[in-house]
Amino acid sequence: MCELLGMNCNVPTDICFSFTGFQARGGLVDEHQDGWGIAFFEGKGVRQFLDSNASAHSPIAELVKNYPIRSKNVISHIRKATQGDIKLENTHPFMRELWGYYWIFAHNGNLINFKPEFDGSYLPVGNTDSESAFCFLLQELRKKFGTTFPSRSELFIEVKSLSIQIGAFGEFNFLFANGDLLFSHCSTHLTYIVRKAPFTQARLKDKDVEIDFSELTNHTDRVAVIATIPLTNNEKWETMDPGTLWLFQEGEVVEHGLTIAGPLTQNPSPES
Amino acid sequence: MCELLGMNCNVPTDICFSFTGFQARGGLVDEHQDGWGIAFFEGKGVRQFLDSNASAHSPIAELVKNYPIRSKNVISHIRKATQGDIKLENTHPFMRELWGYYWIFAHNGNLINFKPEFDGSYLPVGNTDSESAFCFLLQELRKKFGTTFPSRSELFIEVKSLSIQIGAFGEFNFLFANGDLLFSHCSTHLTYIVRKAPFTQARLKDKDVEIDFSELTNHTDRVAVIATIPLTNNEKWETMDPGTLWLFQEGEVVEHGLTIAGPLTQNPSPES
Repeated sequence: MCELLGMNCNVPTDICFSFTGFQARGGLVDEHQDGWGIAFFEGKGVRQFLDSNASAHSPIAELVKNYPIRSKNVISHIRKATQGDIKLENTHPFMRELWGYYWIFAHNGNLINFKPEFDGSYLPVGNTDSESAFCFLLQELRKKFGTTFPSRSELFIEVKSLSIQIGAFGEFNFLFANGDLLFSHCSTHLTYIVRKAPFTQARLKDKDVEIDFSELTNHTDRVAVIATIPLTNNEKWETMDPGTLWLFQEGEVVEHGLTIAGPLTQNPSPES
Repeated sequence: MCELLGMNCNVPTDICFSFTGFQARGGLVDEHQDGWGIAFFEGKGVRQFLDSNASAHSPIAELVKNYPIRSKNVISHIRKATQGDIKLENTHPFMRELWGYYWIFAHNGNLINFKPEFDGSYLPVGNTDSESAFCFLLQELRKKFGTTFPSRSELFIEVKSLSIQIGAFGEFNFLFANGDLLFSHCSTHLTYIVRKAPFTQARLKDKDVEIDFSELTNHTDRVAVIATIPLTNNEKWETMDPGTLWLFQEGEVVEHGLTIAGPLTQNPSPES
């Protein structure tokens, strides 16, 4: 399996602190050594760093950890291969364009016998179940909405419906973003935290690093961090229920709903 | 205007030497300071590094210069903005997927009033003439060949026809590659060199750096380097005639042809 890390904020924020802990899990304190990647949105543009080596030993990961790229939306992934060889083209996150926006996608899980029919609009380059799921997701969104960006709630309903459809094939935790919106689907494991004023100290679980966010932030800042397993051990992370889809915008949850029949611990959104 | 650098080889080769000279032109010895980018193919996968800062002062460019990523196909670009703001989404090279391959594109020139009709299959994310040209190129290739990768010569004929069509709008020097094939279109300025045995010494024009390729290569290696202006001052670079399209594969020219009426200095390929 793999691990996911996402960030969605209302101001461009660097992810150095969270990435420091996350990177350590890629072959240093954990087994995720089959490559890693990270994508930063800067406006509509994307900076993507991919490496088929373990993140703990990657000079590119060292650069990312030490060079504060400020972004409102980040998706990162460390890989323990289940399907697909250890190759650059199988390294997450993946990127495609839809409606004049880049979309970034990373997956943790395993889809069994997922062989969707592709019409050619988005074709996988590698041979992972994950990239197939991403291409199918975009293909179906374009089929549904044509060349026009739908409203946020229309898009949420459709991504939810596709998450149910693809999720029927197996474990399907994913992060999916276009620089403004960040979708997080919890099929088995995903947690999140929204950091906002009053900001406090945070301490990484995987490395002996502490940070005082109150010294680095303004009181209006809002930063949502999503991770497979909580990255800090002195903050309260929310556990997403299996079978839920969450949409983050400007550092907060703006929509959420069920993708399987079952209880939702927080107030469901109207369409769930 | 901007500058282009491309590499196409028969064995994975690092571009550190050429990039060292090229990087110096991005704000150090030259005026190209409005961003830079480089894309390396590794098999079908791509590593893309983009920065809207000058390459001469970019920590990411330092990493690329010092970290020998071995690739059979590389495209790099340093930008002096003509159209489009200095933003990440306007930074070349651009990337899209077609026929299950990533395609990388970088442009040097200026297309006047180029407003193609887009059907939605590939839409620009930024607002440069260059990205519009790339999206139009891919859209028309998909329209012509559907979901199937055509033969090399069919593809060459079509890219040539589209180069003529788009080139009617202005200066259109470009590099366009999928990891195997590298197209180079010379509208005004483009040069190339094919390095092969017997390998000799090369000395950069823009930095006091010399390399002895005979110490680093095997006698079967073949490396084509394409650049707007020759990068070394002790080797013979071929000047591409304005109005010519060249296709490189495995480190050598495999097709070339005219995109305007005029003389071609070398033997034209059958379809030119």
